[in-house]
Amino acid sequence: MKSLEQKILAEGTILPGEVLKVGSFLNQQIDTGFTMEMGAEIRRLFADKNINKILTIEASGIAIAFAAGVQMNVPIVFAKKHKSKNMSKDVYASVVFSYTHQRTFDVTIAKEYLSADDRVLIVDDFLAKGEAVRGLIDICNQAGATVCGACAAIEKVYQGGGNGLRDEGYTVESLAKIAAMSDDSITFAD
Amino acid sequence: MKSLEQKILAEGTILPGEVLKVGSFLNQQIDTGFTMEMGAEIRRLFADKNINKILTIEASGIAIAFAAGVQMNVPIVFAKKHKSKNMSKDVYASVVFSYTHQRTFDVTIAKEYLSADDRVLIVDDFLAKGEAVRGLIDICNQAGATVCGACAAIEKVYQGGGNGLRDEGYTVESLAKIAAMSDDSITFAD
Repeated sequence: MKSLEQKILAEGTILPGEVLKVGSFLNQQIDTGFTMEMGAEIRRLFADKNINKILTIEASGIAIAFAAGVQMNVPIVFAKKHKSKNMSKDVYASVVFSYTHQRTFDVTIAKEYLSADDRVLIVDDFLAKGEAVRGLIDICNQAGATVCGACAAIEKVYQGGGNGLRDEGYTVESLAKIAAMSDDSITFAD
Repeated sequence: MKSLEQKILAEGTILPGEVLKVGSFLNQQIDTGFTMEMGAEIRRLFADKNINKILTIEASGIAIAFAAGVQMNVPIVFAKKHKSKNMSKDVYASVVFSYTHQRTFDVTIAKEYLSADDRVLIVDDFLAKGEAVRGLIDICNQAGATVCGACAAIEKVYQGGGNGLRDEGYTVESLAKIAAMSDDSITFAD
């Protein structure tokens, strides 16, 4: 998605430790119109998959997953990272390591919101080592749901998570693929 | 918003401690089409306020804030509850007590995403004692931004937060107002 690559180059900044900061439009401030365009592109990429539900993980995946859900006319479900009083005890759970936060999270989805009837698309803002996607695949497997694919706004291809999943047969698409990143430059794949 | 009241009655469940669970469409699973309708209603309610930015708090406020942002054609910014590697150190911060989680959170917004030029609408899924809204008002005051109003999907009127804010002169609207709730019934205001 050329417009996303242009936006990353125009607004993104690279922080120490290969952290790409895109908080001006994707992560903390969210460009709503542009995110809806990303949702339309996700619909196009997975149009033939007969998807009926989108999964993501709170918090930064919610906006792009919601935009894709609006465009595809399906509900979204987000995995929670923290137990809370309004969370059912009857949950599917997996463990995800977050490189952003440098810790593991228990991620959970209430069993009532995912079943063997579901054909699931996993959507997230970033795909790097693939930990979040693998946690959600684990949860889908527990529910007997079908994983139809995964889609990230931005994939750091050089971190290997996306290609590892592709090698295992999963359909993985990303709206912008970063092949290499240094302190002052970004190179896109394709 | 009658359709929201009907959805609460049809799909909501009351948990011990006056917790209203609406995870089937608002909180964990999100009905994307219906949430866009709520966004359109928020646009209608605040049409004359010349709003250019919507603030919310992660995670359960993001979807409805995003929907309102799409309908009003403005960006959203969500306050974060946890420090992370891609968070600027240069933040506005406030402290919010969450009754759902029974703990306080430091909520933060990077200074670059909020300024004295902003005319802000605060949007959240629930309004009970008003702690989250007051935290975001505090952050707006630090930035010199104008608070144009606050809007929740569901207000628990009997918990007093909304009326306290109205008494202080804030414009507070809610799409469904719960006047009273018992273990097996919900009474709406108006």
